[in-house]
Amino acid sequence: MRAALDCLLDPRSIAMIGASANAGRIGGMPLELLTRFGYAGGIYPVNPKYQEVFGKRCWPDIESVPEPVDLAVLAIAAAEVTPMLRRCHARGVRAAIVYAAGFAEAGGDGVRLQDEMEAFVAESGMAVAGPNCMGFANLNTQAHTAFASVFKTAPAQSGPGVVSLLTQSGNVCAAVYAIARRLDLPFSHFINTGNEACLDFSQYLEYLAADPSTEIVLGYIEQLRDGERFVRACQELERQGKLLIALKAGNTDKGAQAVRSHTSALAGDRRVYAAAFRQLNVIEATDFAQLAHLASLATLRHRSAGKRVAVLTMSGALGAILADKFIGAGLDLPDLPEDLQAVLRGGIPDYGMVGNPVDVTGNVVNDPAFVRTVLQALATTDAIDAVLVYAPGYMLDRMADALAEASRQHRRLFVAIDTGLAQSRQALRDAEVAVFEDLGQAVSALAPYLLWCEARGARRIAPMPAPQSSADARALPALPCNEVDARAFVAAFGLPQALAQAARTADEAVAHARSAGYPVALKILSADIAHKTEAGGVALGLVDDAAVRTAFEQVLRSASAAQPDARIDGVMVQKMERGVAELIVGATRDAVFGPVLTVGLGGVLTEIYQDTSHRLLPVDEAIAMQMLRELKAFALLDGFRGKPPADLAAACRSIVAVGNALLAAPDHVAEIEVNPLLIKEAGQGVAVLDALILPATP
Amino acid sequence: MRAALDCLLDPRSIAMIGASANAGRIGGMPLELLTRFGYAGGIYPVNPKYQEVFGKRCWPDIESVPEPVDLAVLAIAAAEVTPMLRRCHARGVRAAIVYAAGFAEAGGDGVRLQDEMEAFVAESGMAVAGPNCMGFANLNTQAHTAFASVFKTAPAQSGPGVVSLLTQSGNVCAAVYAIARRLDLPFSHFINTGNEACLDFSQYLEYLAADPSTEIVLGYIEQLRDGERFVRACQELERQGKLLIALKAGNTDKGAQAVRSHTSALAGDRRVYAAAFRQLNVIEATDFAQLAHLASLATLRHRSAGKRVAVLTMSGALGAILADKFIGAGLDLPDLPEDLQAVLRGGIPDYGMVGNPVDVTGNVVNDPAFVRTVLQALATTDAIDAVLVYAPGYMLDRMADALAEASRQHRRLFVAIDTGLAQSRQALRDAEVAVFEDLGQAVSALAPYLLWCEARGARRIAPMPAPQSSADARALPALPCNEVDARAFVAAFGLPQALAQAARTADEAVAHARSAGYPVALKILSADIAHKTEAGGVALGLVDDAAVRTAFEQVLRSASAAQPDARIDGVMVQKMERGVAELIVGATRDAVFGPVLTVGLGGVLTEIYQDTSHRLLPVDEAIAMQMLRELKAFALLDGFRGKPPADLAAACRSIVAVGNALLAAPDHVAEIEVNPLLIKEAGQGVAVLDALILPATP
Repeated sequence: MRAALDCLLDPRSIAMIGASANAGRIGGMPLELLTRFGYAGGIYPVNPKYQEVFGKRCWPDIESVPEPVDLAVLAIAAAEVTPMLRRCHARGVRAAIVYAAGFAEAGGDGVRLQDEMEAFVAESGMAVAGPNCMGFANLNTQAHTAFASVFKTAPAQSGPGVVSLLTQSGNVCAAVYAIARRLDLPFSHFINTGNEACLDFSQYLEYLAADPSTEIVLGYIEQLRDGERFVRACQELERQGKLLIALKAGNTDKGAQAVRSHTSALAGDRRVYAAAFRQLNVIEATDFAQLAHLASLATLRHRSAGKRVAVLTMSGALGAILADKFIGAGLDLPDLPEDLQAVLRGGIPDYGMVGNPVDVTGNVVNDPAFVRTVLQALATTDAIDAVLVYAPGYMLDRMADALAEASRQHRRLFVAIDTGLAQSRQALRDAEVAVFEDLGQAVSALAPYLLWCEARGARRIAPMPAPQSSADARALPALPCNEVDARAFVAAFGLPQALAQAARTADEAVAHARSAGYPVALKILSADIAHKTEAGGVALGLVDDAAVRTAFEQVLRSASAAQPDARIDGVMVQKMERGVAELIVGATRDAVFGPVLTVGLGGVLTEIYQDTSHRLLPVDEAIAMQMLRELKAFALLDGFRGKPPADLAAACRSIVAVGNALLAAPDHVAEIEVNPLLIKEAGQGVAVLDALILPATP
Repeated sequence: MRAALDCLLDPRSIAMIGASANAGRIGGMPLELLTRFGYAGGIYPVNPKYQEVFGKRCWPDIESVPEPVDLAVLAIAAAEVTPMLRRCHARGVRAAIVYAAGFAEAGGDGVRLQDEMEAFVAESGMAVAGPNCMGFANLNTQAHTAFASVFKTAPAQSGPGVVSLLTQSGNVCAAVYAIARRLDLPFSHFINTGNEACLDFSQYLEYLAADPSTEIVLGYIEQLRDGERFVRACQELERQGKLLIALKAGNTDKGAQAVRSHTSALAGDRRVYAAAFRQLNVIEATDFAQLAHLASLATLRHRSAGKRVAVLTMSGALGAILADKFIGAGLDLPDLPEDLQAVLRGGIPDYGMVGNPVDVTGNVVNDPAFVRTVLQALATTDAIDAVLVYAPGYMLDRMADALAEASRQHRRLFVAIDTGLAQSRQALRDAEVAVFEDLGQAVSALAPYLLWCEARGARRIAPMPAPQSSADARALPALPCNEVDARAFVAAFGLPQALAQAARTADEAVAHARSAGYPVALKILSADIAHKTEAGGVALGLVDDAAVRTAFEQVLRSASAAQPDARIDGVMVQKMERGVAELIVGATRDAVFGPVLTVGLGGVLTEIYQDTSHRLLPVDEAIAMQMLRELKAFALLDGFRGKPPADLAAACRSIVAVGNALLAAPDHVAEIEVNPLLIKEAGQGVAVLDALILPATP
């Protein structure tokens, strides 16, 4: 028995309920497309008003259709949908597409209509797409169910397709299809998910991961309903050697929600999606043309590639601009090895360049044998991963044969940019050379693609850590808790603590300060005050007894003034410790993806420069090290300006521990933050200077 | 008498010396172009080998040409150039173009050849372009002197041109021309400067500022030879209501290397160029297509515009993507005013959106009267500066009449993005609607263009300050000088100093520390040690006499170890002062632009995050405030997280003072740096914590 999703996405027969004879109407256009493109399955228009539409017999109702129907397309009003689904189900129809708007997205009655539909679908086991969707297309079977005129205006496709569109917007689906068809991308499925009442993005993605006709998925995502399922579907795609290229909308923060901790301020929706995409080997795009160009490059992805690019042009100036663009986008232009430079010097005039960019000069295009030698040498050196040729118009034409030959013979990725109107573009594409007509588009697709190739092996989610002992779980204090309790909990996961003691009186504080040694810091101790500095609850660099006494009074007074209702347990007295740098390490629960880890440099500037790294949990030490290296501020940890290098190994262990602490904590723990985590010199470890555990808000 | 530059750029007659009958050769192609495009002036091929080329009589030598010649084009070898210039000059030729390579860029003998040519040109007063240039074109008179096949392959231009290309590379000139002609940009001059032996970029720019046929200049710059002249030329362009859009190469180390070997010129500092461009109202582009699209927008620049954009689409998803892109690029999408939203609600279904982005929904394009109402309302509201419509293909066609009408009737900038294949593109362009076919290109051109429109009035170089009194000049110490002397010099320009005293012995240091009050800092005092921290010459947060004594010994020992030859004058003892933030303020001399000011947040992170602002000097307090506001770290000064706001007025006065100090200093002062400048709470002023004066390296 074929699955219901197969009936939806690869139907053997289609009934159009609410059929129209007018190709401009939603009940007519799919019928016109089915007949125009020669869909071989059964086509059953249903509408009592007509005898025949688009040359097909029209049936008065679904009950009179004489053959089995895989898929019913409902071009009818919202209120009629669920009754009609019942009738379809009774007739053995396994799948349906619902065009109608006026469901949950409209609020009010629409919500009720959608609930009703969901309940019936759950009970019946039908595969129902939408509501409020544009319909689908299977371009390999020409099963058109979308009212999308783009199929009439975009260049038609010959031969089988391997690229599937999966979007949370019909308009985006159509817009990307139009652009991608102009690049001659061969499509398999055209899917837009509408309201996702019954089938969500991740379920379609699972289907495509298993679909033999899909190699690349172009996704458009507004909001995922099921992050865990998305993660599993992406992992399955990866296992199948397939690729998701995704555009996520809603990257601009609109309403600033009440920020409870620094970590949740840093781990915005956008950053968590980006982190998840990276770990799941999803390439992230930011516009439609880029999405299409990335897919175009990915159709060549059996080739080895990476971020080391050789650039070859006819002019030093063009080389300089390309170098600016590509290096600015994160790619490497390594100097070519000496033996290769020697080959180049054999034919390049003195006023050219043999480094990288290579400037072969305009004259050299008149020497096809030398061009061939150069391209063959670039195709075989181990020093680079990809070759980019920028030669406008006839200059590219002169090199085209040698370029096509090199691309055919070797697994190296060759890319051509032609801002003129070269005749040879198609011939080059036929030889699997990527051809761009615009420098900006070339950079915006090549940079993420090559960086993705480079990092592919290193991107992953760590396996779940071994469960913590029950002793650790018992250590969890009642929430909200103060710093002493929070430190005790994270200490159980292997996080070393800085020397600090609680004091209830000024005398106690002075005693602790003397035993720790001056200078010291005083911090308010209260389960109710998460932001101590903002509450005036911190005094740093206290140099003697008098300073401690003054600070004790002041810290208590300020904190009480800032939060009169806070229960105050005294102060923490902590020796001022010096290290190489301070980090913020925080684990939170993302609404979509669940437990997420954030690492950044401590202090106010992290928020200002947004210099943070994020990962879905769990992470291991290798991933923790990737996170540190992603920070621009990593330089500070790595022997900046003669400073000693920091204890990176200890930092990584602590980062993993913060993540594991949240994974081991029960669901009512929303967040665990160590801020700052002091990183000392290599070999001297780290120290937790402060810790915070926040409960979930009810 | 017409100027020599007119003979070069608007010649009445042209002699081609080294003429060829072969259109594929450099001595032939310009002759073919002159005849093909019907140049109306005299055309005089010169070559004893031919009687006639391209239907024109060919003369054996320049002496036998019977008519006056404005411009001689020299298609001859480098060694023959200066002798031929002499002969041309003797015949009354006022201008020449030299194609030949093998001059300064080739080194060795070429340098001598170029020196010889420069000497003759200086003596004769001829206008000589190149050497090593591709030749020019005046597209209004069809005076073609370039060996550039792009004129044959690019779409020909009808009617007069107003855009001039001025590039430091012939290949870039041709590549941009090809792209821009596909956008139908109408060209005036096609100029590439070659080696700039006699005429440099800025001189051509001066000419174009005065040229009635030029409104927009598209520039490509590797390295300016005369920054001051460039500044004056840009200011003249501005006075004439003209615009320079410039692409600067060499923005990364690798790019800079390519520039060096290309023209044997050093690439200037990227940030200084960017600052100069901003102050001079030059729009900076980063690739060719963007350059062309910016020019295309600028041809509409009589319209009022600014960064507040209304976005109108047919779908919420498209609106979300546009909002991400435009807000990410620095533009504003303000909510529309309530009365305008009321108009929109009149015709937009409930599932659309009336805020901004406006989602009129797909249905609305079937209601042309309502579309007209919406566009008219957007054309006249004061709440926005520009209107962007994203409607693919036939959707745009349905709105095109109303859009064209609104654009014709109002001065508002209307922009359309069509990722389909709308039929109405040309009609919209005819109505001065900017039409883009790619979202990425639209953002990359619109964002800098609208931000330029917005900031236009505020961008300037301040007038020179009143000369400092001779007392200030006398205060300049002999260089190199130590911190005490440097502080004294900057103090004369109105920079308040933090309390600090020099000490030669540990006892003196302790006495100073007691009188200042603990905690204090100790810093090595030496004219020879510019980087005190790196030399181990700084101790912070010393809390008592013992700490001062220990630090005194240690600071001296470390500094001597780091720089054994340094003359050490003791230490500075300085009270640890608290403020809101610390800035670095430095004035340096740029090789191209002269005195330049840099402002950033103090500390190591400024270097890591590259969060700095730069200006050509002089600056005034308004410009100093712009500089502060440009810093991402400005938030820290502005009441960040409940901190008190900083004394911005005092900060601005001090920034101006550092600039004025360098302007008043003699040329052998290379740099004056105040780092850190402590900014205290509003009303409490600032304090110089350290100052440095560096001499020019001999």
